[in-house]
Amino acid sequence: MQKYFVSNEDFNELKITSSDVFHIKNVMRNKIGDEILIGSNNKTYLAKITNIKDDVINYEIKEEKIGNMELPVFISLFQGYPKGDKLDDIIKHSTEMGVSEIYPTIMKRSLFKLDLKKKESKLQRFNKIAKEAAEQSYRDIIPNVVDIIDLKKIDFSKYDYKILCYEEDAKMNEESNFKRIVKSLKKDDKIAVVIGPEGGIDILEYEYLKNLGFISVGLGKRILRTETVIYYVLSSISYEMELK
Amino acid sequence: MQKYFVSNEDFNELKITSSDVFHIKNVMRNKIGDEILIGSNNKTYLAKITNIKDDVINYEIKEEKIGNMELPVFISLFQGYPKGDKLDDIIKHSTEMGVSEIYPTIMKRSLFKLDLKKKESKLQRFNKIAKEAAEQSYRDIIPNVVDIIDLKKIDFSKYDYKILCYEEDAKMNEESNFKRIVKSLKKDDKIAVVIGPEGGIDILEYEYLKNLGFISVGLGKRILRTETVIYYVLSSISYEMELK
Repeated sequence: MQKYFVSNEDFNELKITSSDVFHIKNVMRNKIGDEILIGSNNKTYLAKITNIKDDVINYEIKEEKIGNMELPVFISLFQGYPKGDKLDDIIKHSTEMGVSEIYPTIMKRSLFKLDLKKKESKLQRFNKIAKEAAEQSYRDIIPNVVDIIDLKKIDFSKYDYKILCYEEDAKMNEESNFKRIVKSLKKDDKIAVVIGPEGGIDILEYEYLKNLGFISVGLGKRILRTETVIYYVLSSISYEMELK
Repeated sequence: MQKYFVSNEDFNELKITSSDVFHIKNVMRNKIGDEILIGSNNKTYLAKITNIKDDVINYEIKEEKIGNMELPVFISLFQGYPKGDKLDDIIKHSTEMGVSEIYPTIMKRSLFKLDLKKKESKLQRFNKIAKEAAEQSYRDIIPNVVDIIDLKKIDFSKYDYKILCYEEDAKMNEESNFKRIVKSLKKDDKIAVVIGPEGGIDILEYEYLKNLGFISVGLGKRILRTETVIYYVLSSISYEMELK
């Protein structure tokens, strides 16, 4: 069953008016009487479609779905801005895997140059990808792609743990920091994860982050690409905290 | 430093004659005297380039790199053949993460129809992706993309553990089977991992696999897309077995 996140406004009037109307009618080909899942205010409801018009769909709520689909910790991903459209996949898959929010982060070795005129439309597109991935993976919330931001402008003070995924440490077989941190996580802890772009984290950035209290971690023996690192981090945290 | 796998033949004569010659000359722009890593017979060597010609590069071995980059267990991925070019990413990233071999597997809900005439060229392309990903991630071996095969034609008898990633179990909050298996893994164990295509595993396939001794596992609370499942599996195994 497909899930759709709706705005508070629409939810109060038990309707859908966004581009999801098109999806429901033309992609899923739903009819009156079909069931869908509605996400609103971090809750999920089983709903029945009661009316389908050109640009609005009405529904009635059948029941609230109980059960929290979220990781027990809050994870902010600071992803070094990568080449091409890799960020699309990173946003999509890290959303499926439970990330809480994402900052595409401009670092020394990012080849990306921020065009301020295009920033808003880029963020809009990234947030659309996150919404669709959150719907498909039955998340309770939509991770926010907050801002495209320069590494040095980020305030990391709110985090309980600050993790830096550093290729050079992986090559030196650093193999205990990550597991030690994950094993000590408690519910609602806030974790910042910084991942370099393709060329990795520059040594000056590394020192800057270390001075802010970041702990550098190796993630197994193989050298991961920038787009794979967050999958390792999120999977391991789910494995450790969610599985029994 | 870039790693290149060379054939036994080329290694015996300390040369490279494959398409890597182009990569070394034109992408990496290496010169005589530069160092590269050479992979051969599951070993990795530090080498120095001694001669560069049009279609051959010679080198001398400086030392053998000690240190095993492989996961301690052998993992065969039976990936339900997905839509579009998703398999390219799955082969690339699961190679980075330590998979041992891959069988693109035709299952009931695969939309893919195998064209026998194209099979060899497809396999060739898949194996090229695996080779490049293995070089980039410093693997000791290149995972073999063995065959495009029908689920029912696979012989699973050699495996110590048989894992079935089943969406319906994830939805029912099955949350103990995977961790129990991973925690009981021993060095050199052989594990088969079956993952459905986009539509998931058909109920008859599910029953067929259960009868063969497969254990169905849930992987955390969120519904993962077909291309993300193996990342969760490999990351968790690395986390459990390689990190301390």
